[in-house]
Amino acid sequence: MTELADRAAGHTTSQAPAARNSPAAPAARTAGSPAVDVAALGEQLLGKWAGIRRQARELAGRPELHKTEGLTHTEHRQRVFGQLKILVDNGAVHRAFPVALGGEDEHGGNIAGFQELVIADPSLQIKAGVQWGLFGSAVMHLGTEEHHTKWLPGIMSLDIPGCFAMTETGHGSDVASIATTATYDAAAEEFVLHTPFRAAWKDYIGNAANDGLAAVVFAQLITNGVNHGVHAFYLDLRDPVTKEFLPGIGGEDDGIKGGLNGIDNGRLHFTQVRIPRTNLLNRYGNVDADGTYSSPIASPGRRFFTMLGTLVQGRVSLDGAAVTASKLALKTAIQYASERRQFNASSSTDEEVLLDYQRHQRRLFTRLATTYAASFASEQLLQKFDDVFSGRHDTDEDRQDLETLAAALKPLSTWHALDTLQECREACGGAGFLIENRFASLRADLDVYATFEGDNTVLLQLVAKRLLADYAKEFRNVDFGVLARYVVGQATGAAIHRTGLRGVAQFMADSGSVQKAATAIKDEAGQRALLTERVQAMVAEVGSALKGANKLPQQQSAALFNSHQNELIDAAQAHAELLQWEAFTEALGKVEDAGTKAVLTWLRDLFGLSLIEKNLSWYLMNGRLSMQRARTVGEYINRLLVKIRPHALDLVDAFGYGPEHLRASIAGGAEKTRQDEAREFFRQKRASGQAPLDEKILLARAAREGKAQSGKAQNGKSQKGKSQRG
Amino acid sequence: MTELADRAAGHTTSQAPAARNSPAAPAARTAGSPAVDVAALGEQLLGKWAGIRRQARELAGRPELHKTEGLTHTEHRQRVFGQLKILVDNGAVHRAFPVALGGEDEHGGNIAGFQELVIADPSLQIKAGVQWGLFGSAVMHLGTEEHHTKWLPGIMSLDIPGCFAMTETGHGSDVASIATTATYDAAAEEFVLHTPFRAAWKDYIGNAANDGLAAVVFAQLITNGVNHGVHAFYLDLRDPVTKEFLPGIGGEDDGIKGGLNGIDNGRLHFTQVRIPRTNLLNRYGNVDADGTYSSPIASPGRRFFTMLGTLVQGRVSLDGAAVTASKLALKTAIQYASERRQFNASSSTDEEVLLDYQRHQRRLFTRLATTYAASFASEQLLQKFDDVFSGRHDTDEDRQDLETLAAALKPLSTWHALDTLQECREACGGAGFLIENRFASLRADLDVYATFEGDNTVLLQLVAKRLLADYAKEFRNVDFGVLARYVVGQATGAAIHRTGLRGVAQFMADSGSVQKAATAIKDEAGQRALLTERVQAMVAEVGSALKGANKLPQQQSAALFNSHQNELIDAAQAHAELLQWEAFTEALGKVEDAGTKAVLTWLRDLFGLSLIEKNLSWYLMNGRLSMQRARTVGEYINRLLVKIRPHALDLVDAFGYGPEHLRASIAGGAEKTRQDEAREFFRQKRASGQAPLDEKILLARAAREGKAQSGKAQNGKSQKGKSQRG
Repeated sequence: MTELADRAAGHTTSQAPAARNSPAAPAARTAGSPAVDVAALGEQLLGKWAGIRRQARELAGRPELHKTEGLTHTEHRQRVFGQLKILVDNGAVHRAFPVALGGEDEHGGNIAGFQELVIADPSLQIKAGVQWGLFGSAVMHLGTEEHHTKWLPGIMSLDIPGCFAMTETGHGSDVASIATTATYDAAAEEFVLHTPFRAAWKDYIGNAANDGLAAVVFAQLITNGVNHGVHAFYLDLRDPVTKEFLPGIGGEDDGIKGGLNGIDNGRLHFTQVRIPRTNLLNRYGNVDADGTYSSPIASPGRRFFTMLGTLVQGRVSLDGAAVTASKLALKTAIQYASERRQFNASSSTDEEVLLDYQRHQRRLFTRLATTYAASFASEQLLQKFDDVFSGRHDTDEDRQDLETLAAALKPLSTWHALDTLQECREACGGAGFLIENRFASLRADLDVYATFEGDNTVLLQLVAKRLLADYAKEFRNVDFGVLARYVVGQATGAAIHRTGLRGVAQFMADSGSVQKAATAIKDEAGQRALLTERVQAMVAEVGSALKGANKLPQQQSAALFNSHQNELIDAAQAHAELLQWEAFTEALGKVEDAGTKAVLTWLRDLFGLSLIEKNLSWYLMNGRLSMQRARTVGEYINRLLVKIRPHALDLVDAFGYGPEHLRASIAGGAEKTRQDEAREFFRQKRASGQAPLDEKILLARAAREGKAQSGKAQNGKSQKGKSQRG
Repeated sequence: MTELADRAAGHTTSQAPAARNSPAAPAARTAGSPAVDVAALGEQLLGKWAGIRRQARELAGRPELHKTEGLTHTEHRQRVFGQLKILVDNGAVHRAFPVALGGEDEHGGNIAGFQELVIADPSLQIKAGVQWGLFGSAVMHLGTEEHHTKWLPGIMSLDIPGCFAMTETGHGSDVASIATTATYDAAAEEFVLHTPFRAAWKDYIGNAANDGLAAVVFAQLITNGVNHGVHAFYLDLRDPVTKEFLPGIGGEDDGIKGGLNGIDNGRLHFTQVRIPRTNLLNRYGNVDADGTYSSPIASPGRRFFTMLGTLVQGRVSLDGAAVTASKLALKTAIQYASERRQFNASSSTDEEVLLDYQRHQRRLFTRLATTYAASFASEQLLQKFDDVFSGRHDTDEDRQDLETLAAALKPLSTWHALDTLQECREACGGAGFLIENRFASLRADLDVYATFEGDNTVLLQLVAKRLLADYAKEFRNVDFGVLARYVVGQATGAAIHRTGLRGVAQFMADSGSVQKAATAIKDEAGQRALLTERVQAMVAEVGSALKGANKLPQQQSAALFNSHQNELIDAAQAHAELLQWEAFTEALGKVEDAGTKAVLTWLRDLFGLSLIEKNLSWYLMNGRLSMQRARTVGEYINRLLVKIRPHALDLVDAFGYGPEHLRASIAGGAEKTRQDEAREFFRQKRASGQAPLDEKILLARAAREGKAQSGKAQNGKSQKGKSQRG
């Protein structure tokens, strides 16, 4: 029987796709159906830094680095601090530092490694990110050689655990407005760090509550009565022996958080704390002994932008980690859904597994498609990051493109991870809620990814602003209203094609035949045309509405902007989704195996069509799709789900995670073992002739013999309403 | 100045709506603007059992009942068990029990009280629900007088902590298929409880890991070789002194969960455990000493349905608790957003608070509107529940309507709570992630509400089935295809009006003028017509597609059903949303104060229009709205947001929660205090003439004097891109 074949094949063997088919998906069993080359696809997903990712996964698979659930936050903090030392001992976190100091000057690979750490414990990823990605990185990028020699070795070895003290209670995303001051005292040749009021306390600072011996503090640099804007200062925080705050420094613990409790976030404040003049990290701004300020960057704005540029690596790191978490969740949920039979009563036929249900497929496969898109986009972002940070492509424009790309992708991937973790947890029912299956734990830890290293909503506004600026630049001398009509009317894709991030993604491969393509939603050109047109038209529409806003008084200008804020953010999101779609499509172009290409194309189409379905009202309202064609979108998606079904396990197996990474009790075939045992029990029972008769069957027999009313017995049937089958 | 007026008025005083207005919402400051009667609205929200809710809130406000964050799950369990005794001592959990035993026979009020317990700690609500709502309730409703006398006093007093052992690892929502057996042994006059395999272990059972001394166990009752289906048995689990499992009983701890860790969920299994014949809770099915089975309900299906009927109170309880959690979150987030100024640099003018931003209003006010709708719908459900359980309206039809209504509302309100808690947490940024502000804690605890007491997706399928059945009943002898065309074409609302839950909500108040109404989306009749038509048409469409499914072989029938599962669930959700909209509208009719009515009408319209916007593509694809009219929906929503803005605090204050319920550090005006301090600091600094000059201003001056290039200085402006204003 099929069940024996199933068992013989083993539930996790990716070489046996036939065993995965089920009665509900007969089309999938066709002999001619394509097959996914799991190994090759896995290699492609690993990307440019495959070797480093493999090393990082090996490390993240070790029990000593795993999150222990159920610890108090105090215990969890201690454990994670100890794990940081294991990372140091294994050379896992020094890749980005200078070769001269034992690093590798390897920027992209360094982040790739960090992204994989989330597998062990998100707290470990973020705590390591605080120490080496923020604190150490600030000393490296904002300091000069003297600073490097003096502090980097201790930072790299963890002898100096430190803080990145930028955010204040009163200022989250608006760093330029922080209120901490560093006033130069020429007589003493010292800076005086000071916190003027409660809202200026540094807040949410990792390592601040316990471990930080030092900090890079961001403050307004004031010398000779002039405020030169935000600069970074190196400050000793605590006595290395007693761990007490040094004089003038105070703070408190942020306490327990919704997640990431392995990190000791806290608050810091400074009361006239004096530090040597040379503790100013002075690569982009220096104060001479006499108090004279100088900078290689004349414009304060550009200087600020440059100093904050290193922050982008945090966003890149979160983006990839969020994708990783989505992959872990989908592998577990899809594995479970491929085994779970909700209703194996004592009937002789096998019923469908959860994964055969249309709604279940919708819930999981659409998110699987988005995860693939986000994964390929994340790899592009990482490569762009490496291009800039390695200095290979390091112009102002490159840096701005990198900033914008990170600001576009990080919101989508972090929100997607939360959505996916939750949907997977619900798709696994009560089992999904148990910590042993990890969804809830990962979700709690990743929650804050949506608002730290740049609040997602704020980041999308950055993207929108860039889109508007590019749009305005392109048509500087043309009347805005006319333009909007032109772009919307023609819909040739030219406007966006010539502006906005063209180095990152090709917006329109074949701009010649858009009108035709737009009518064919199922092919690549049609999807691209629809997705691109929407971004174009939305940007043009807002651009037109905001025409002349700059010339209005500030309050009116702000009010006008505000009345279009929602559309602006929607436009930015549409743009980011297009970037994901382009990344997926570009990756498809690199697939060589025909079977893999066929299946991945269905998945890319599912992603594209899901985006179009989500925004279907826009396409209809704006005359981009007819009513009739719009109605086919949902149907086509349903057909794609059925096509993808037999390959779902291959697609999650290609993520390449073993049991030491998944660490979910339902990811390892436990459900199938239980099902097999139950099925065998009932089979033997029936064979033995000892199975009790069902009262309903007795009644039905009696009814046939005219002894009872058949009407009553039928009531029993309505109870099947509690089944998934409705 | 305005700021002084603000401070004088006090940030939480609901009597000073003027102080809440901000520069960005000038329209709201109009003198003629309506005002909300917060006290009267609060009273209406408290509903029929206002007195009991007040008592429950007083209790839930006591520190000894509050959740202590950061406990281990072991400590948390102990604390909650202790809290149950406090509930007993305060007579908070006995209202539903018989008067003769010290109860009040008060069913609706009992659940109202439970719903408020979530304020103290969701674990407390659910653990109390397990003890008295499930375990005790099963003994009461499924047992007979002997059982009541013997066990209810101990259950009520908590001398017998107990389990409701229904769910098995292998069967979540499909209770009829559980595999635990209770086989009658006439010789010994005993039942033998037995677990045949691992998948039949009872799982996720509250009180099972530690506290349960007894259990109501659900098992297949087998006597004389016939299986009479699922029945409930009373079983002693543990030795009351040693707390060890009694012979033949085993189990394990479910361990840490994503939330609700104050409850000791666990697994149970039975190896040939013998219990007296009289431990069968025999109200609906009895076995005589000789093994003869008898039941007052001849049909096994109807008997099962009746026995499971008490489960509905769990769903009613979760529905109201979810609404309560949404209210807590919105009060905190809206309070904070009304105080937080993201960008109070050292400028002299106050900038907008977060709540003035369009996107922030969208995020919070749409959820506020849904919360009001869910709250009024929840009260209707509770009254329906009370009608049935009090016996006042207790026909089979009443019970089925209650089941369907609960199955419709519980999914929406529990998902809404998770969505609202998350959106509020993100809207508060990093502060939202701190446990001290409670969003993350409540979200973690309420997560499982989406899948327990009936998985939301499964419940919506129950609703869909009912809608289809009503539809089919109404048109039993008519050709389905013709009918679908008829209903879709005519769109008069007649079909649903005459079927499906007509006792619960009036679907069409004025069915005469639908066509006209449908063109006016802004008024009540127009919204009703659009929302109703969608349900009708969706049900008719699926009904038509499934025509004849019953007559197909089982596998084909299942496949046909499955290919429409997604639409079916969407139809059920549309139906449930309509019920919420009707409940809101009905409540509006009871508002007497004109100002309150005006503001609540905007809020109801915001709810209705948000539903229409969410499903706009459907209205367009199906010709219910023109492209032009569809484009006005978003604009109208934006105008409603501006209208509601000045009343937002009143609307959350009407929920009636004090600091002892909110217990969020940012809900109490802390942000405003910090803002005031910072503002005053900068004011004094400016007044003193000691404020440092900004380098940018110096450069601009220099530029005017021709000493520098103005182009470079402008770069600084682009950094404002990090602001909320984009």
